[in-house]
Amino acid sequence: MSFFNFEDEQPQPQQDEFYMGQALREAELAFGLDEIPIGAIVVCRNRIVGRGHNLTERLNDVTAHAEMQAFTAAAQTLGGKYLKDCTLYVTIEPCVMCAGASYWMQIGRIVYGAREEKRGFLSKSTSILHPKTKLDGGVRAAECAALMKRFFAQKRD
Amino acid sequence: MSFFNFEDEQPQPQQDEFYMGQALREAELAFGLDEIPIGAIVVCRNRIVGRGHNLTERLNDVTAHAEMQAFTAAAQTLGGKYLKDCTLYVTIEPCVMCAGASYWMQIGRIVYGAREEKRGFLSKSTSILHPKTKLDGGVRAAECAALMKRFFAQKRD
Repeated sequence: MSFFNFEDEQPQPQQDEFYMGQALREAELAFGLDEIPIGAIVVCRNRIVGRGHNLTERLNDVTAHAEMQAFTAAAQTLGGKYLKDCTLYVTIEPCVMCAGASYWMQIGRIVYGAREEKRGFLSKSTSILHPKTKLDGGVRAAECAALMKRFFAQKRD
Repeated sequence: MSFFNFEDEQPQPQQDEFYMGQALREAELAFGLDEIPIGAIVVCRNRIVGRGHNLTERLNDVTAHAEMQAFTAAAQTLGGKYLKDCTLYVTIEPCVMCAGASYWMQIGRIVYGAREEKRGFLSKSTSILHPKTKLDGGVRAAECAALMKRFFAQKRD
């Protein structure tokens, strides 16, 4: 759990870039474990309340996505079931399962880094999210995508 | 874990009704815990390899759906990550999150009981499932729906 003293007048894009950097750190942890490098954090009122990185290999569980773990951690930290006042930062566009989970969590906002054209939820239906969830994408997209490319290039070697 | 000695010539509809009965038993366990009564089982070659019932209240986790727990249990029982040769029996049409999870599990077949017009995945996109996943519905639908109606009627009293 971490605190950051952003001034209220701190522009949103700068906050988004900072927090995406934290999600990227999670993605790098996954990379170091030979997991597909996707990372996520959940922020509530300038406080990181949940972190997660992809652990599908290590947990032998194809649903152990970064977002699912960050959601569970955030709900535990906050002691509530819903994440209405929270923002999910995730390095790659969420899949249908994670977008569906965000619906139940009623998350306030999702910010993703790079698009995932094939398995991202946007290619299926934009109405998957909770009607109150705001969505933004493309934050530090190049870095988020580069980490994935580096991982898969290494796998092919 | 249970074994059933179905003869090969046993008609599929009869097997489906039997296994949906097992999912209904899980749903009744949820009902007894004051949880929304949805139950699920995963069957692999006539063997029940995973069971689950809705535990969102008890676990304080809005993603603790019957299907998610049955998937995890099945993967643990089988010691693999995928459920290609398995069938999910679930009393109510899965939501987007659970349908999305079934994609990653590459489940062979999904059989649901009653439709869930509002939050079921069919109202969002039929292309959410893995291309190899077969889908059937309406098995013991009246019983599955009746359990839900009884639960919510009791809540209103």
